[in-house]
Amino acid sequence: MRWWGWGEDGHEVAMPEPAAAILRDELGTDESMRRRPVALEEVRLPEPRLSAAARERLAGAVGADHVRDDRGIRVAHAAGRSYPDLVRLRSGDGSSAPDAVVLPGSAEDVAAVLAACAEQRVAVVPFGGGTSVVGGVEPVSDGFGGAVSIDLHRLDRVVSIDNMSLTATLEAGLSGPQIESALAAEGLTLGHFPQSFEYSTVGGWVATRSAGQASTGYGRIDELVEGLWFVAPAGEVGARPLPASAAGPDLRELLVGSEGVLGVICDVTVRVRRAPDARRYEGWWFRSFAEGCEAFRVMEQADASPDVARVSDEEESRFSLAFASANSVVERLGRAYLRARGRESGCVAIVGFEGDADDVERRRVRTGALLRAGGGVALGRRPGDLWLRNRYAAPYLRDELLDRGLLVDTLETAATWSGLDGVYRAAIDALRSTLADRGTPPLVMCHVSHLYRSGASLYFTFLARQEDDALAQWRAAKQAASDGIVAAGGTITHHHAVGRDHARWMRAEVGEMGLELIRAAKERLDPAGIMNPGKLLPSE
Amino acid sequence: MRWWGWGEDGHEVAMPEPAAAILRDELGTDESMRRRPVALEEVRLPEPRLSAAARERLAGAVGADHVRDDRGIRVAHAAGRSYPDLVRLRSGDGSSAPDAVVLPGSAEDVAAVLAACAEQRVAVVPFGGGTSVVGGVEPVSDGFGGAVSIDLHRLDRVVSIDNMSLTATLEAGLSGPQIESALAAEGLTLGHFPQSFEYSTVGGWVATRSAGQASTGYGRIDELVEGLWFVAPAGEVGARPLPASAAGPDLRELLVGSEGVLGVICDVTVRVRRAPDARRYEGWWFRSFAEGCEAFRVMEQADASPDVARVSDEEESRFSLAFASANSVVERLGRAYLRARGRESGCVAIVGFEGDADDVERRRVRTGALLRAGGGVALGRRPGDLWLRNRYAAPYLRDELLDRGLLVDTLETAATWSGLDGVYRAAIDALRSTLADRGTPPLVMCHVSHLYRSGASLYFTFLARQEDDALAQWRAAKQAASDGIVAAGGTITHHHAVGRDHARWMRAEVGEMGLELIRAAKERLDPAGIMNPGKLLPSE
Repeated sequence: MRWWGWGEDGHEVAMPEPAAAILRDELGTDESMRRRPVALEEVRLPEPRLSAAARERLAGAVGADHVRDDRGIRVAHAAGRSYPDLVRLRSGDGSSAPDAVVLPGSAEDVAAVLAACAEQRVAVVPFGGGTSVVGGVEPVSDGFGGAVSIDLHRLDRVVSIDNMSLTATLEAGLSGPQIESALAAEGLTLGHFPQSFEYSTVGGWVATRSAGQASTGYGRIDELVEGLWFVAPAGEVGARPLPASAAGPDLRELLVGSEGVLGVICDVTVRVRRAPDARRYEGWWFRSFAEGCEAFRVMEQADASPDVARVSDEEESRFSLAFASANSVVERLGRAYLRARGRESGCVAIVGFEGDADDVERRRVRTGALLRAGGGVALGRRPGDLWLRNRYAAPYLRDELLDRGLLVDTLETAATWSGLDGVYRAAIDALRSTLADRGTPPLVMCHVSHLYRSGASLYFTFLARQEDDALAQWRAAKQAASDGIVAAGGTITHHHAVGRDHARWMRAEVGEMGLELIRAAKERLDPAGIMNPGKLLPSE
Repeated sequence: MRWWGWGEDGHEVAMPEPAAAILRDELGTDESMRRRPVALEEVRLPEPRLSAAARERLAGAVGADHVRDDRGIRVAHAAGRSYPDLVRLRSGDGSSAPDAVVLPGSAEDVAAVLAACAEQRVAVVPFGGGTSVVGGVEPVSDGFGGAVSIDLHRLDRVVSIDNMSLTATLEAGLSGPQIESALAAEGLTLGHFPQSFEYSTVGGWVATRSAGQASTGYGRIDELVEGLWFVAPAGEVGARPLPASAAGPDLRELLVGSEGVLGVICDVTVRVRRAPDARRYEGWWFRSFAEGCEAFRVMEQADASPDVARVSDEEESRFSLAFASANSVVERLGRAYLRARGRESGCVAIVGFEGDADDVERRRVRTGALLRAGGGVALGRRPGDLWLRNRYAAPYLRDELLDRGLLVDTLETAATWSGLDGVYRAAIDALRSTLADRGTPPLVMCHVSHLYRSGASLYFTFLARQEDDALAQWRAAKQAASDGIVAAGGTITHHHAVGRDHARWMRAEVGEMGLELIRAAKERLDPAGIMNPGKLLPSE
């Protein structure tokens, strides 16, 4: 992965003129704002602070070859991939880099690293794909004798696959493509496709309670975890792979979502499915976001949801259409639809079905009837196929937008159906008024992308002209939107996790006694407090 | 509820002669073994031990009228409804009775009761329907200044129903019939039907991580809990009703299944569904239990499971048939089926569909095709309707079997599909050999009753002639079966919970560090250690 952005070189996303026109005309960007990241050699890194004793203990734990502190690896582990992370990295700020990166090869190695760090009071950041967008992997070392990232990529074995029970035990460092490739060889799939799929790891998914683009159908990662093996400084916890149990509190759910502050997920047993024979993705249009949401609610509550279900609001539909003009068919379809109805706007939805061919067809017909009854108009397969082809493209596009001097970030939440509109309006209003007041009126877009019988998620994207103090501008927008979401009854995060950026809203989320319960678990598992400091829990 | 057994008078279950013949010929029972419970007046109760100060504090918390210690109420709260509970009660052993029963009317009352008990070092047992079969509600007061049961029946309000989000907020003391009746008035259902449905409460279901007979379709109670309000001695914890969240560990799952040892569940927000227009229950036959289980696995993994799915092994099928002879049609169907195939045995299955009429028919056709392909033969609706009519009858029958001098108990577990047969054989062999060695060869029966993509539950019933020391006999059988289940990789409980009877297997279930995590939560929520002592956690 490029140290200052997303992915590898050669995946640059072209900006079609209609989209560039929106940025220029509505946000006020111009070519003079173009900027590029500094060179790697120019990144300012602090001197490594690990004591000789600490380095020696770490080398003893994993071998000297697996304790690294060269410039490239330190910068690559200095931050996740959030907007503020990239703003800082592109400007050459590597102040948060770890003092070293440790690469264990087994759960035993992980235990040895944690023992060494607890003894030497070195902070530890578990690091999978490093794709956190909430500051989850940025080392925080105040009060410690340094910080190390424990990079889990060497934990990359497929431990076992149970074809009869449809489960697979995977080491934590396996990435999305590695997992799907190993499962495909057995005719299986996990079906977990977050936007970070190409780089993120199963350990990271479980640590952050991830949802994927197809989680409406395949289930969130927390629903897919059957068991796990967890190594903490104070010892090990195993949640045995079981389909269900009534044996007390579900401790698995205390470790899922623990974001590295309790320990390190070393392997996970996940529930898998037979790989689909058929895939069918379609576009639909609705007259308004409200109409689309209501149709989706009826569909979900009739147990008729597709595997992928997303509906964009008017602004996101307009921007998507401007983008899709590169693909003239979709643009023509959209414009034709609008013209035929004498209207200028509408909302695009994507529904996707995966399974055996008969099953896909049966579900598609039933779902289609409900969407049509809810006011939807079918646009056929082309918009669906286009979405599928570009499903991981947004983070690449973000690099292009950063190059153009834009603030670009996303926020996500979930709420009950009856609360959804209130949360939607609260976030939109907060972003618009905060950024307009600063003289940088934004473009704010939203879609619903995960359906539950009782509610849905909302995913916001906002763009604005970048101020000189880009981080202050971002912090103001983030704070206002998060306050608005929480006050309106939404969760502070539906799938990005808490990390550093959402920690201050955790008190509102789980209450004081809820925080106490997490702290009680932390004190028991991590008595020295070395695990991922500054994340998940608000400062006391 | 009758203090010595199940339900109210007038629901006695008749014992058809073919079933009586099995008990007589195979287990060696005879009419001389008939016994009846002692009279209520003969039950031996300890003197109430609450200090005057404690009584005064409790009366101050809930009003003097709601602190009761008459014989009837103490005996009714002395135990749950397990076999050993009933053996002791029927013999007049009321030694475990609480010193008083406290009836709070609100969450504030509950907090006041807990504060009083913490101050006075009085043990507290949360009590809903009192139907625990694992010793979950039996007061344990060693080391305390007495024990009170906190009976939650006055917490019986339907707080709110959200028709759009399909959720309902229910106070903890509402019973199954109260809940379904309130929801039916809105065209809704929760769909949670444990065998104890008529008496058990939503608070009890959530505290014990209950599964109902239709949980294959409607989901286990832990999947139906959207939020809850929990009162502990140290304070209150609210899990906000949200469809999903990635905000850290799921603390809701730490409180669900906490069995009264952390605090008291005061209200619960549950996910509900539209009440079904149509119900269709059918019987099926398979040549063997293995064939039936395999057909069910294929059905479940094709996402084609009915809402109720159960398949009995050969012994349970034989005993059910003997019972069903009261209903001649089912018996004739069964015998005709067997004769036509020149075989003496087979396995009966029940599948049940609920929903709108089209949906039921569509699912029934698809499921039927898979079951037929798996070797099943359809027996039509009569066996299904009979099962539905008698779905809550087993605990009434147990009273009749106790009258006849029988040991009768049930055990349940869950395992992955690949481990299911091993766990099945381990439990059956342990029960058969242990009881045969004691000179009381048992009848051991089993069914699969909850399906998951990765596995299923097994539910065992065992009958034997009662020894003079009925409790020693039961303990030996229980210990052997539980050891066998856990050694073979099954969970110690799939839906009965842990209580007192399964606590010793919790170390095997969650490991030493898992126990430490539960203890850490308990120390934080219940620093005085008054909440339901002796339950869930093994003695240290």
